[in-house]
Formats: sequence, C-alpha cells, structure tokens
Amino acid sequence: MATEAVFESWNGKRARDYRQAANIPHDLGTGVNVVTMVYGNLGEGSATGVAMSRNATTGENALEGDYLTNAQGEDVVAGTRPTKPLEQLQTEMPEVYKQFEGIARRLEQHYRDMQDMEFTIERGMLWILQTRTGKRTAQAAVRIAVELAEEGLISREEAVMRVEPAQIEFFLHPQFSVAAKAGHKVIARGLNVSPGAASGVVAFDPDLAERWAKEGDRDVLLVRPETKPDDVHGMLAAKGTLTSSGGRTSHAALVARQFGKPAVVGASALSIDLATRVMSAGDLEVSEGEWISIDGTTGEVFEGKLETVVPDMDDKWLSRLMDWADEFRRLGVRANADYPEDAASARKYGAEGIGLCRTEHMFFEPERLPTVQRMITSQSPAERREAVDALLPFQRADFAGLFRAMDGLPVIIRLLDPPLHEFLPGFEDLTRELADLQIRITNARTLEEVEKITSKLSETQAMLDKVGSLREANPMLGLRGVRLGILIPELTRMQVRAVIEAACEVTREGGKAMPEIMIPLTSHVNELRRQREVLEAEARKVMTEQGIELSYLFGTMIEVPRAALTADQVAECAQFLSFGTNDLTQTTFAMSRDDAESGFLMRYLADGILPANPFATLDEDGVGKIMHLAVSGARKTRPDIETGVCGEHGGDPASIAICDRLGLDYVSCSPYRVPIARLSAAQSALRAKS
Amino acid sequence: MATEAVFESWNGKRARDYRQAANIPHDLGTGVNVVTMVYGNLGEGSATGVAMSRNATTGENALEGDYLTNAQGEDVVAGTRPTKPLEQLQTEMPEVYKQFEGIARRLEQHYRDMQDMEFTIERGMLWILQTRTGKRTAQAAVRIAVELAEEGLISREEAVMRVEPAQIEFFLHPQFSVAAKAGHKVIARGLNVSPGAASGVVAFDPDLAERWAKEGDRDVLLVRPETKPDDVHGMLAAKGTLTSSGGRTSHAALVARQFGKPAVVGASALSIDLATRVMSAGDLEVSEGEWISIDGTTGEVFEGKLETVVPDMDDKWLSRLMDWADEFRRLGVRANADYPEDAASARKYGAEGIGLCRTEHMFFEPERLPTVQRMITSQSPAERREAVDALLPFQRADFAGLFRAMDGLPVIIRLLDPPLHEFLPGFEDLTRELADLQIRITNARTLEEVEKITSKLSETQAMLDKVGSLREANPMLGLRGVRLGILIPELTRMQVRAVIEAACEVTREGGKAMPEIMIPLTSHVNELRRQREVLEAEARKVMTEQGIELSYLFGTMIEVPRAALTADQVAECAQFLSFGTNDLTQTTFAMSRDDAESGFLMRYLADGILPANPFATLDEDGVGKIMHLAVSGARKTRPDIETGVCGEHGGDPASIAICDRLGLDYVSCSPYRVPIARLSAAQSALRAKS
Repeated sequence: MATEAVFESWNGKRARDYRQAANIPHDLGTGVNVVTMVYGNLGEGSATGVAMSRNATTGENALEGDYLTNAQGEDVVAGTRPTKPLEQLQTEMPEVYKQFEGIARRLEQHYRDMQDMEFTIERGMLWILQTRTGKRTAQAAVRIAVELAEEGLISREEAVMRVEPAQIEFFLHPQFSVAAKAGHKVIARGLNVSPGAASGVVAFDPDLAERWAKEGDRDVLLVRPETKPDDVHGMLAAKGTLTSSGGRTSHAALVARQFGKPAVVGASALSIDLATRVMSAGDLEVSEGEWISIDGTTGEVFEGKLETVVPDMDDKWLSRLMDWADEFRRLGVRANADYPEDAASARKYGAEGIGLCRTEHMFFEPERLPTVQRMITSQSPAERREAVDALLPFQRADFAGLFRAMDGLPVIIRLLDPPLHEFLPGFEDLTRELADLQIRITNARTLEEVEKITSKLSETQAMLDKVGSLREANPMLGLRGVRLGILIPELTRMQVRAVIEAACEVTREGGKAMPEIMIPLTSHVNELRRQREVLEAEARKVMTEQGIELSYLFGTMIEVPRAALTADQVAECAQFLSFGTNDLTQTTFAMSRDDAESGFLMRYLADGILPANPFATLDEDGVGKIMHLAVSGARKTRPDIETGVCGEHGGDPASIAICDRLGLDYVSCSPYRVPIARLSAAQSALRAKS
Repeated sequence: MATEAVFESWNGKRARDYRQAANIPHDLGTGVNVVTMVYGNLGEGSATGVAMSRNATTGENALEGDYLTNAQGEDVVAGTRPTKPLEQLQTEMPEVYKQFEGIARRLEQHYRDMQDMEFTIERGMLWILQTRTGKRTAQAAVRIAVELAEEGLISREEAVMRVEPAQIEFFLHPQFSVAAKAGHKVIARGLNVSPGAASGVVAFDPDLAERWAKEGDRDVLLVRPETKPDDVHGMLAAKGTLTSSGGRTSHAALVARQFGKPAVVGASALSIDLATRVMSAGDLEVSEGEWISIDGTTGEVFEGKLETVVPDMDDKWLSRLMDWADEFRRLGVRANADYPEDAASARKYGAEGIGLCRTEHMFFEPERLPTVQRMITSQSPAERREAVDALLPFQRADFAGLFRAMDGLPVIIRLLDPPLHEFLPGFEDLTRELADLQIRITNARTLEEVEKITSKLSETQAMLDKVGSLREANPMLGLRGVRLGILIPELTRMQVRAVIEAACEVTREGGKAMPEIMIPLTSHVNELRRQREVLEAEARKVMTEQGIELSYLFGTMIEVPRAALTADQVAECAQFLSFGTNDLTQTTFAMSRDDAESGFLMRYLADGILPANPFATLDEDGVGKIMHLAVSGARKTRPDIETGVCGEHGGDPASIAICDRLGLDYVSCSPYRVPIARLSAAQSALRAKS
C-alpha cells in the first residue's frame, strides 16, 4: 500500500498530516522527509497500528497502543478484526518493538511531550506515518507534566503551565470508573457541554424532576428535547441534564455550565416522546423513571446506573506539581469555610488561612434557628438580649474549632450579613398556611377542633405580621450587613465576644489564633467607625476578663461600589479589605444574580451581549476597574493594607489572573477549589514574567 | 433709664449688642461710639420702639414698625400696652420721624441691606440702640434684593446670591393667607421642621390616616405623640404631620422633610390621648376627625380649616431676579415632564427642554393599561405584536404634544423602564383573592354560583401564574430598562416609531421637534449597540415612509455603576449621557430607596452616620466621584458628548452646585423646581468665579 493509500485509508481528517508520512527516525530533526510508499498488508511480517508514548489515561511512562498484523489502517479503524495490544509486538517482533520504543523516546525528546503515533511495519521494517502531541486525561496530564520535568525534558515552570486549572477538577469531582463504563452500553453521544458524571432516573419534565429530587429517595436526570427558561428549576433539582437537540451555546448548555451541573446536549440519536414518556435510541427504549447515566466530560450517554469514583487529591504527582506552583505564585490562597471540618480540608488542600467564614450559616443549624427566630421576633430589648446571649456559646465553639483547624493562620470572620427575614418562614408559605387554616376552620366540626385551629391561626398571623414588617422591595439592597450591626449593636457585641473568647480559649491551649473581624456591606466609612467603637470596647472587655492580650485585625468587605470609590476613606478605619465580588458584581451591574441567571442573563450570553457570565468570571472592564480604584485608593491611605477576594471568583482561573494583576494579596475560594487557585495563581505569575 | 438699664430691659439675648447702643448717626462709619445713657420713659416727648427699613412681609420699600411713648423696651416686649404703628410717629413727632427715615436710609446704605432697628426717643432726641440685618419672608427677600440692586446699593450678582433657592419654594407651594391666619386661633406652637401649609382632619393612627386619605373625601393630618418607622405609611398618606414631642432630628422631622410634607413637631402644649382619641391644648379639645391646620414654615398649629393661597410665580421682582440668574449661570436647566401640560408649565418656568420623559407613565393611563397587560400576558408573538401596535397611536399623540410644547427645544424620551409586573395586579392581592374564592366556593349554594366562582378562580389563577413568573427577588436589579428592550425588541421598535412619527407630524405642522431617544439601565456598551441597530433601522424606515428627514440623538441613562465606569466605551455608541442619580445612588450605595427611607436610613441620618439623605442631596464623595469618572471617560471618547442629570437631585441646590462643578451641560428637574434650579445654577457659577 502506498502512502497515498494509507492517507486515504485514514480518511480525510488526516489530510494535513500527509507530508509527515515518512520514516521519521532516519531524518529526525530535518523536517519533511521524502515520501515513501509503505504497506502494512504484505503478509505476517507486516502490520499497522497506533500508539501513545505514555499511558493517556494514567500518565504512566509506558508505551500503549493497538495493532493488526497484515492489515491496513482502515482495518484498525473499522474494528472488523480484534486489534492486539502493543505489548504483544514485544514477543511477535521483539526487534521492531525495541526500535519503536527508541523512536517513541526520541520523538518525545524532540517534541518535549507525550506523542500519539501511527506506524506501519512493512516486511519487518518500521515506518512512522505520523506523530503528534497526544490527548490525555486530566490525571495523565498532571503525571506526564511532572515526570517530563523530572526527566529534564521541560522546566518546572513549563510543567506548571501545561496543566489546565480545569483539569485539577478531575481530582475533585466524581467520575465514572473505567470499569463501570466498560460494563454499560453507550446508547447515544452528544456534546460534552458541562463536565462531570451523573446517574439518575429519567424525568421528562422539570416539575417532576423537582418533585422526585425533593422526595430525596432517588437521583434524577432531566431529559428534554431542549430546555427553556421554564425548565431551570428542574435542571437545578436534577443531577444532570440531557437534551436531544441544541449546541454548545444552547440554553441547556449555558445553564448547566453556570450551575456546574453535568450536561450532554444535542444527542440527536435520541428520540424523546413527551406524550408516551419514553425516549428511544434505535431499538432501545427508556421509560420515565428508568436509570441512565451521562458523562458530561465525554458526551456519552449510558444505559443504567454507573458507579462513580472520586479521584484522589493525594495523588503524588499532583502534590509535586502543587509544590512547584506554590514556589512560583505571588498571590496567597485562602479558603471560604464556615465549619471546622471545612477548614481542615481547606488546610489539607493548601489553604493559607480562611478568607471568609460566613457566620450566618451557623445560625441556620436546626438546634439554633429557634433561638435566632426568638431574637428577631422579640418584643423587648431584654428578650432580645437573652436570645442573643443564648447564641454566644454556639458561636464561640464554632470559632474555636476554626482557630484550631487554622492554627497559626489568619481566619477572617464576617459578622452577620443576610436580611433577618431569611431566618423566618416565607411570607407566601405563611399566607398560604393562613388561607388553609381559614378554609379548615369553616369546615371544623367540633369545638375542640375550632379552638385548635384558632390558636394556630393567631400564631401564624403573628409570625406573618413580623415577616411582613421585615419584607423589603429589594432585600439585596436592604437591611443587612453592617446595617444590621448598627441597628442591633448587641448582635455585634455578641459575635465579637464569641470571636475573642474563642481566640483566648485556643491561646490557652497553646494554639495561635489570628482572628480578622470583617464588617459586611459597608458603604460609608462612618459605618465602620461606629462598628469599630462597639467592637473594640467589647474585645477589650473580653481580653481583660480573660487576662489574655490578643492581636486581631479589623476590616471590611468591599462589595458596594461606594465603598470601593471611597476606599481612601474606608482605609482610615479598616486594616484589611476583602472584595465580595459576587455582590460587587450585582451592584456594579445592577443585576440581581438570582433573577438574572434564570432569566435575561442567559439570553445575554447566548446573544453574545456579554462575553462571559460576570458571576463566573470577573468582569475586568467594569468590576475590575472599580477594584483597581479601590486598591489604589486604599493604599494611598494605608500602604500595607491587606487585600483579597472572597467569593466564587476566587476559584476561577481567569478571575484569579485578574486578581493577580490587581496586586491583591490573596484569593479565597471554596476548599475544593484551593488547588485550582494555587495552580492558576502560579500560571498568572509565570505569564507575567514571560 | 441708662443704656445699661435698656440692655437689661431687653434681656440677655441682646447682651452682645450692648456696645452698639449709641447715637449712631453722629458717628456712622467710625465703629463703636461712646456709650451714652438714654431713657424712653421721661414723659410724652420720650418713646421707644422697633422698626424695619422695608416691609419684612412684602419687601415694599417703606418703614414699618411699632413704638410706645413714655415707655421702656420691656413695655414693648411685654405687650401690656398696645403699641402704635410707626406711621403715627409721623404726626406725633414729625421731625423725629423724618430724622428716623433719614437714618434708616443711611443705615441701609452703610450695611447694604434692609435693617431691623431699635430706637429710643429721649425728650425729642432720637437714639438708635441697635441695628442689624432684618429677617424677612421669601417674597420680601426677592423684592428687596432686586430693588437694592436697582437702587445701585448692591450688584445684580449680589442680588442673585442673596436669595436662598429654598425661598423660591414660597412661590410654588400653598401657604395660609394672612387673612386666614388672622381668623383662626393658634392652639399650639412647635418646631417648624418641614415647610408648607396643610389642613386636614385629625387621625391619631397611621392606618386610619391612610384609610381616610384613600377614601379620598377629606384631607388628613396625622397627629401622634411621636412617630416611628411603623407610622411612615400614615405620614405619606396624610397632608402633614403634627407631634407633641421630638426635635429637629426626630423621626417625624426627618421623614416629613424627606417626603416634602409639612410638619410641626414637639408642640409640647398639646396633650394627645390615644385611648380617648382626643388631643387637648389647655381647655380646647380636638377629637379625631375634626379639622386642624399646621404651618410647617412657622410651626403654628391652628384650630379649624384655613384657606391656602398659591403665591404667584409671575411676581415681577422674581422674574427680574430669574433673568439675572439666567445671565450668570453656565448650567442649562431642563424639566422632567411626561405630559404636554407639564411640558408647557415647565417652559413657562424657564425650562430649556425636557431632560426626561418617562414613557411608562403613559402606559399606566386607565384606558391603556388593559392593552399593556395584554402585551405582557400574550401567549403568542402575534398577540404581543398586536397589543404593542395598539399602543402606538397613544404614544405618538403623547410625544407630538411634548414636541409642540417644547417647539425648538430638545426633548429626551426614555424608552420603557420599569419591570413588567408593575403593570399587573400584585401577587399578594391575587393570592388573597384566590384564597377568598376558594373559601367562597366551599360555601356556594347554587350550581350557577359555583360555575361563576370557578370561572373567576381559573382567571385569577392564570393571572397569578403570569405575575408569579415575572416575580423577582430584587426587581430594582432585574428585568427592566434596556433588558426589556433587548428581550422584546418590538417594544423598542414601537416606541421609536411613535417618537419619529410624532416628530414628523410636528415638522409637517411647521414646528421644530428635537427628539433625543434614551436607553435606560445600560450596564454594557453592547446593550446600546444592539438597541441602536433596532432603533436606527426603524427610524430610517419611518422617515422613508413619511418622506421627512429628521435629526435625533441617541443616548443612555447612566444609572448603573458599570456604565459610569466604562463610559469611555459607552460613549462610542451614545451621543448623550443622562445621569439617573436616584438609581445611581441606589446602586452605588447598594441601598433600595423604598426600603431604606422607611427604615435604617432615617436612623443613619438621626445618628449622623450619613451627613445628608443621599436621595435628596447628591453624595459628592461617592456618587459624585463615579459621575466624575464617567464624564471624563466619556469625553475622552467623544469630547462634545451632552451630559446632564435627570431625577430629583436636579432640583436640589446643593446637588446642582455639584453638577456644575462636574461640568455637566444641564440639570433636569420637575417643572416646579425649574426656577430653583435656575437660581442655584447661577449661584454656583457666581461662587466659582469669586
């Protein structure tokens, strides 16, 4: 078979490689070689195959491939004859195999990366038809980069640059195991628009998906011909989404990526019948309620329920890569953690402190919520004071746990932020409950029943009145953050007391607690001044009581444009600033995330009005600009002011690069994204150098 | 009586003037004179009195005063003997009167202002004890300033500087006439915390005040011992507020000033019994539902209902002052007007164009609202299109009226801005209605009744579903403004068509229409680019149809921080920028005005955390800074870009000065505030020069 034939047998997609089809080893390094006709089907001494210079799945440094004797390329592709693993060549043609090993090594050295090669053996003579950089899994990418650096083929800097931060996610999210995939039939393939693996029972409409998911006894996959904004609640409730039509910028794709849910779209082999509640792929039929699995990383759709595995963050090559990344990066990496166990995993993943502890999460714990509600609904200052004091031991224990987990590292504790109504039942639920009770009372048959309903009625009415009085037209811009602390100073006092008492406790145990107390939603420096007075008085009081002198920092979130614009004034009072980029994006864009992401923002992204979702990747032109103004303003007043970002952007590679350029001191992200942030920070630093 | 005695008789408040008690005419201009003892009680040839060099109420250039013969100062103050009007001195002691006239004139010339003088006549010899600049009404202030300038005592610039912009409000708001005041008993006096006159029936609680006001058949005054945030809805519904306790920074005072409602607070002579629903002042009792009147300008509380008068804006001295102001100011003044009649009054008050026509107000007209609702609830594009088209003739007629009223002056028309749910019934009202219907259906007795309720039920449910689907967590930051135009381009097309068709109509009539089409809530230049494409295509189409070539401007509101921060990009597309400072303040502060002003903002103002309500007076440090960034950014791209402010700040003197310093081209305010804006703009320009 001539090389022209070889080219044809490998089909059009290889046309561009045609001129490389040559016996490369003889002329390696000289570029294009003389075109020679080679044949793999000239008897048992001839063969053809493909091979990777390293294992593309695990990254192991060993040849991996398939071949067929007495065959042409198309035989390998067609799958009409079972291929043989490359190891078998070692016994069938040991000389050729040895030669191939050497060539693979030389190709790797020349191209300084793992190679994907096509070869033909013509009557015992090895020809390399083509070589190119091989595709690999995330796991393999890490190991190969690290081992290439250790072999001296590339620098450590290059190794760090070669791994995509997104590939680190592989080590964090469940995946289908190779064994599980092998055991289940692929029923369709679609576009791999949102990575991750998910299994669930099929639901053909969003309401059903939501209902089944809420019942909680089984995972659900939402399957639709395509999705629309009305389907979003179902997508959120489901473990993943599968559609039979739509492309990479379809609604389903955008929403799924947005919410980090696995999705496969445009699986056109599927025919979905919403009337009979059955989807079919060829002969196969799947009814609503039956299990399927989707792999959003590959686009595969499987029959049945596949087991998932969580890859190991302790992978030794990953650890080595991370160590190198840490050497190169300028930007610090902290984690957002509200509980001691999260803080512990964050530290394990390399966090250098806590950038954000949201104290409100502690308030939602079931055994505390009634006390929180009592605090909100209290009729007298004494009653309120009592409820606030009852929360103190809980908070102190939480904080002590954080300080222990982050021994010797800074821990930023943000004082209570959300609107109080979030801790109470919903207005509409209460209204509905009231209406129900009113209907029930008209149907009540016994006096006892009437009395019971009446009592419940007045209780519900009282709660409704309170909830009603706390309602706001725009809660995101209402009574929350520092505004709460100013209206209810006893809350600030209690939280500060809990922080300082916890820090004293840990100090007595021999630990080193480094609290940084953060005020949310500041818009005017005077808010900080007032809170600082309250806070310092209480902190002083506790330290005197405890007989321990502690140092702590006082600072604020920058999440309101005004605070950013007046950062020079804010810095007179604040020792650190932490950009709450989620809220700062909401206020800078005048865009409520909850409303926008299930509505017009998706349209904006689909139509290209916005280049990216600003809640996923920092908007450099707008939000980035106001951050720059804030940092430079603040440094004018206080050159050594500590600056950072907390919030989801802190775990997004593109946003991390922006934070690095802004000269922030650290980013803070969820514990699981800490390794991604470390790598991204290193890449940003390396890019800046080059 | 020696001057020491005179001093004592006039009581401590005059102590600082003691050294001026001298026979000023003999030494005018030399400063302090020799202290001489003078007595007004040495027989019938002696007297003592007070006088103004001009009428303090009207400003008329004529002496005005009171005196007593054979008396001391304390006799005049004590009111034990009726005083005589100063004219009588003309016959009693013609020589002295003539001398006094001369002295008054010389004092005015020396001090270059109207004088408030105290005098004693000792055995036919006139002594001036004291002179100082006299207090005067707003009306007098204008006339005196103008006449002093015309007399050459002061420059026109000085005349313009001497009138407080707030004094112009006198000419705009109803006042009690002097006659009305004379005819009614003052039952109490309190602090004059929020100017204006109001009569109404007494309501002792906010719910009742609101109910009575809504019933619409009578005006209400809310009367409370003091107010709290829970009372705000009553204050809003009432014509004015009266409290028996509280000071100038009390809740009632702050809220009333905020909403421009007359208020008298701390009228401590009143005793309010909320149980018996009666207030008493001494012997007098006023029951709930009886009429009283309050004068927030003076702090007086009257029994009964007083007639009010609206002073004349055509006052000739005011007109002259305004002409001078117009010569001095750099800043243009436009008006916010949604209807032709508003535009006409605005022009009468001196507006140089319309800075903001809010098209949504036209949508709320009762005969149009059903069509607007059909547009929103339409199930098909055809149905929507039909509803949108039905709105076209209304809009065109509105716009034509505006262009006629503003013939030859620019008219900025803002495309639809508010969230669509504002045009539909409220979610809670519908929920309640549904619950009611559900109760009613269980009690229905006839089949007919059941059917009727069932049909109503399904209709209500359908509307509730639509309203529910449009609900947003934070509507202020949701689907509104340009976001609507992008999602419903047929709406933009219809509005543009109405604007251009109206302009063509007026052009054909021989008028000159100068439309400026404004996009609200822009955050990214791409939004503008998309809207501009739709808009230009439609405008071109209409002009071709009509055979008329028009010029118009395309621009945007700047009310979102991101648009301000990226104004250099925005200006690539926009020919003018108009700062929507109300929304810009909301987003820059992350403060929802509706929520804040009935809540924590009042506390912030009372506690001095904010120096002023940022919705009343522009926050220069924060909002002013972002405006500055926007203006300088935009001018980099488009040096001649037109810039202005629309919204309430455009009528606030302190804010106007900030806009002047920012170098904006104009401010736009409500028609009635146009004269205030003209004067403020002149004062700002004069201050900048000096």
